[in-house]
Amino acid sequence: MLTLYSYFRSSASYRLRIALALKGLAHETVPVHLLKGGGEQHQAAYRAVNPAGLVPVLQDGDTVLTQSLAIMEYLDEAYPASPLLPSGALDRARVRALALTIACDIHPLGNLRVLNYVGDTLGAGEEGRKVWASHWIALGFEAFEEVLSRPGAPTGQFCHGDTPGMADCCLVPQVFNARRFGLDLAPYPTLKRIAEHCEALAPFVVAHPANQLDAA
Amino acid sequence: MLTLYSYFRSSASYRLRIALALKGLAHETVPVHLLKGGGEQHQAAYRAVNPAGLVPVLQDGDTVLTQSLAIMEYLDEAYPASPLLPSGALDRARVRALALTIACDIHPLGNLRVLNYVGDTLGAGEEGRKVWASHWIALGFEAFEEVLSRPGAPTGQFCHGDTPGMADCCLVPQVFNARRFGLDLAPYPTLKRIAEHCEALAPFVVAHPANQLDAA
Repeated sequence: MLTLYSYFRSSASYRLRIALALKGLAHETVPVHLLKGGGEQHQAAYRAVNPAGLVPVLQDGDTVLTQSLAIMEYLDEAYPASPLLPSGALDRARVRALALTIACDIHPLGNLRVLNYVGDTLGAGEEGRKVWASHWIALGFEAFEEVLSRPGAPTGQFCHGDTPGMADCCLVPQVFNARRFGLDLAPYPTLKRIAEHCEALAPFVVAHPANQLDAA
Repeated sequence: MLTLYSYFRSSASYRLRIALALKGLAHETVPVHLLKGGGEQHQAAYRAVNPAGLVPVLQDGDTVLTQSLAIMEYLDEAYPASPLLPSGALDRARVRALALTIACDIHPLGNLRVLNYVGDTLGAGEEGRKVWASHWIALGFEAFEEVLSRPGAPTGQFCHGDTPGMADCCLVPQVFNARRFGLDLAPYPTLKRIAEHCEALAPFVVAHPANQLDAA
């Protein structure tokens, strides 16, 4: 029995919802509201599940798994049907590098707790938060677009060929997030084309923040 | 033929130097100085290797690989001897989650370009940079320590049992970085014990920033 602890608007939760849908894995979802009552992720009930107080968490039977990329790797190993990674070490390295470009180079800088530090503690305010977030998304998207559009790159309908996978699971939530900050996606035509293609497909639609039970 | 493009003090380069040493993989090292002449990573010679202008890069024959965690996964798949990940999906998930706690939750916030933005663009100055960096390291180390010290955890001489692996490759450079910021490691006794144990071993010694050709 798989249980996903998720916040509708968290990028990392959104990644896992897409991954579970692409793999067709049935699961229960437990919403964890990051803003309500000072943050349900800090409360004892959730700290008992994940002491780090971060979402998402996937529980498989008695085991609690953390970190969205580690969970996607786990899903591929424990439930091999509809793999999120291609076969072949070099192809796998390309997909993982794309996923990490988002998970390491962009997403951590736009996390809620980081935005609060920038906006409040450093006094950058609402506008400063937006400039900060957009800056890192733009830098990361530039690198991501370059890899996708490099001559001879194995980019297809999706980030890697014509099957959706781990890189697409990371890209689509980051594009959703970029739109919230009003970032113009025109400089990244390949990335934009792939994200829009994904967003029309059922596994991405069911995973969309607006379609979650806890959506505001 | 393996070639590592590395900066002596970059955490992600340091991770890969440890990984290559643990696996006993011979390689050439090309130093890329991140501060000299406005940053060699931005110059045409390096941009031709990695257009994202980030270190490290591993070149295997004609193929250029980016993102340190993707490269470690690649090394395990292409050169299976002395694996960096244990066998068993749940054990692998634990090690990957520990590695990602550092690679996603701590390291991106202490990157040179991020510290420059915080210190210069946001005007936090030298002291503000230090407070910022220490804040995120402390939060991440707290979560890391909790996973290591949880009752019944498979923590041993290393982060996972008695064989060094991917989590140790990430931990040791982050501890090196934490010391540069003057962070007190006493609140994280398990993490500290493991890092100090690692630091005395040959593969970690050869990978240390002070022992690189480009060390200042």
